[in-house]
Amino acid sequence: MEQQYPSRLLEKAVGEFAKLPGIGRKTALRLVLHLLRQTENDVSMFVEAVDRMKKEVKYCRVCHNISDSDICPICADAKRDADTICVVENIRDVMAVENTQQFFGLYHVLGGIISPMDGVGPGDIEIDSLVKRVGGGTVREVILALSSTMEGDATNFYISRKLAPYDVKLSVIARGISVGDELEYTDEVTLGRSILNRMPFEGTR
Amino acid sequence: MEQQYPSRLLEKAVGEFAKLPGIGRKTALRLVLHLLRQTENDVSMFVEAVDRMKKEVKYCRVCHNISDSDICPICADAKRDADTICVVENIRDVMAVENTQQFFGLYHVLGGIISPMDGVGPGDIEIDSLVKRVGGGTVREVILALSSTMEGDATNFYISRKLAPYDVKLSVIARGISVGDELEYTDEVTLGRSILNRMPFEGTR
Repeated sequence: MEQQYPSRLLEKAVGEFAKLPGIGRKTALRLVLHLLRQTENDVSMFVEAVDRMKKEVKYCRVCHNISDSDICPICADAKRDADTICVVENIRDVMAVENTQQFFGLYHVLGGIISPMDGVGPGDIEIDSLVKRVGGGTVREVILALSSTMEGDATNFYISRKLAPYDVKLSVIARGISVGDELEYTDEVTLGRSILNRMPFEGTR
Repeated sequence: MEQQYPSRLLEKAVGEFAKLPGIGRKTALRLVLHLLRQTENDVSMFVEAVDRMKKEVKYCRVCHNISDSDICPICADAKRDADTICVVENIRDVMAVENTQQFFGLYHVLGGIISPMDGVGPGDIEIDSLVKRVGGGTVREVILALSSTMEGDATNFYISRKLAPYDVKLSVIARGISVGDELEYTDEVTLGRSILNRMPFEGTR
């Protein structure tokens, strides 16, 4: 049955929360009524944090990771190993790999994965910029750290072909992670080991 | 391990979401990154809906239900039965009872329940205003529709004593709802039946 709301303002806020992934209308109502019970200052802080993040957050010009500045803290860190690039699907995966404390190079965030079913082609993600980085000549190894799925495999394959002309070692993280698993749900130990045990990429080369 | 965020703006937004009930930091990150992928307009709509709701929503002067105007749509509806008042703990419970389509009177939203453990006494909830409404003389029946918990029972008992001097019928919703259950999780059929089968209150009267 269609839920009747006593207030259009309430209904609208519930509707907005219910657009978030995994949030149904009942949960949305709980969250909204929770906010309604907080002080005006608390709600202002919530609203402002979301608003500022959306308006002011930047993406690193080099690796496309999220950042507060034009170059992200990882790319700007002179102590990191600039000749190794770890290619990941998204920002959460950067955080997942960082949490393993097993990788000291730089990243390249594709911002997606090749998925014809979802209409995502190679041109929709940051592959050209990766090729350009590798073409720059200072990169010696590219580690492919995508999820072990059909889409991840297809993306690995496509990248391996694009990088074939360049003199760069291409690795994939060890398939210690079970086939079908998403990278971000892998535990830190397994993920860390899969980076240490990375193997030469056997794709089309 | 402490999660490292690549952006303070992101971290702040995640922190705000993680304050919401039932939202952990991992879920908060998913929600925030989802918002980050939406258009600036979509995020503005989200932010504005929450902001406006908090700043502009009102509470009905009569029943304390949430409302866009000084008097809520239910209290303002001349077709509703003004001599019957259903006492509920919160706004979600108003919506739960409305969904049963078994009640055509007005409401009184206590805005809480007597709970010494949580430091909520009778003076912290809208009991005095209920007594005043009943004292106005047009009310003939008060239906107590609180959760079937210790706190609900204590609140029923307190209200029954406060209303004892007045010539008003006092009922509780039938205990068709299992002892220990929260009102808002009761299915509509059970809750509707418990309103139809309401019984005279046997408290201290």
